[in-house]
Amino acid sequence: MSKDKLKIYGDGRSGNCYKLQLLCAEMNISFDWIEVDILAGDTRTPEFLTRNPNGRIPLLELPDGRHLAESNAILCYLADGSEFFGGDAWDRANILQWMFFEQYSHEPYIATSRFIIKYLGNPPAKQSDLQQKKAGGESALQVMDQKLSKSDYFAGDRFTIADIALFAYTHVADEGGFDVSPYSGVVDWIKRIRRRPGFIPMVKK
Amino acid sequence: MSKDKLKIYGDGRSGNCYKLQLLCAEMNISFDWIEVDILAGDTRTPEFLTRNPNGRIPLLELPDGRHLAESNAILCYLADGSEFFGGDAWDRANILQWMFFEQYSHEPYIATSRFIIKYLGNPPAKQSDLQQKKAGGESALQVMDQKLSKSDYFAGDRFTIADIALFAYTHVADEGGFDVSPYSGVVDWIKRIRRRPGFIPMVKK
Repeated sequence: MSKDKLKIYGDGRSGNCYKLQLLCAEMNISFDWIEVDILAGDTRTPEFLTRNPNGRIPLLELPDGRHLAESNAILCYLADGSEFFGGDAWDRANILQWMFFEQYSHEPYIATSRFIIKYLGNPPAKQSDLQQKKAGGESALQVMDQKLSKSDYFAGDRFTIADIALFAYTHVADEGGFDVSPYSGVVDWIKRIRRRPGFIPMVKK
Repeated sequence: MSKDKLKIYGDGRSGNCYKLQLLCAEMNISFDWIEVDILAGDTRTPEFLTRNPNGRIPLLELPDGRHLAESNAILCYLADGSEFFGGDAWDRANILQWMFFEQYSHEPYIATSRFIIKYLGNPPAKQSDLQQKKAGGESALQVMDQKLSKSDYFAGDRFTIADIALFAYTHVADEGGFDVSPYSGVVDWIKRIRRRPGFIPMVKK
């Protein structure tokens, strides 16, 4: 499967989009990046909605014009059959388990808090929302820390797309008001990923 | 891979748990069901937390004692290589795309509204939450309807685990205060699934 000439529509500030940049760096996949500004409404234009009716980024476009949405589904597609998403049915399901955890039990708390603070400017009207997200975010970090006290990565001793999915917003959790320093397993895991030869940082804006 | 003697921990009222019952019926997989009452705190006991540190159901237990959490990851495991989760990397990613959509853009609105109304007794303190979930739920139904106006199922002409994941809470969306009747594509898709020979209904309580 050729991965050449892939297009990725994304917002450079989004952790969900950074996931794909990180995987592509690890796998040496080249792609064209089309910057899309969520706050300017770029994902709600009629043109963008023909590409993804759910109006979200990142969005992958193949050379033949087909589209794939959902950051974690795109990770699965790009990493299919590689060391980053390999093994038997159990191994892959185990990786997916953590990716569904990320979208349901992590992102809605940690990423959304970061969005409110960093991109919406932490407005008074959002303080109640922010407060409500605190417990969920801490709980996600606790679950991650417990897992990482037993293995180097989420799928065991292998770095996989489950780590990429969870790294994206965890390593900038401080921007959402979360202090990860009490979670030593998480702290060590972040360092471990940063030391990988294929690592690239998130471009901060 | 033998699917005999699988154990599933679940709450019969939960759509996430029903997903597994429906797939097992379609695939003729036998399992032991261990009823777990979320409202009674059964998923927060120390014993349950050793099985799933995230304290959620459904939870799959293999005969050798290994556990897998996250309803949609369990669907992937059980259906791996079958007609319900087959095809090439693109086909599988396309199925996963809708399963991530379900957990991020559908379940937190439609399932959670149903939980507030049906299981928490629609308390006054939750009316603001409920109101906030309305737009997200309608938006998810619109996206589904648009897709189903072009194909019979989410992955095209094949019934897959993407349909099972989305059917679970969509077919009881009325219990969450959502009227699906304006979404004719969704209404026809629900009928199509109910007519399948392998279909089993959700056991209502």
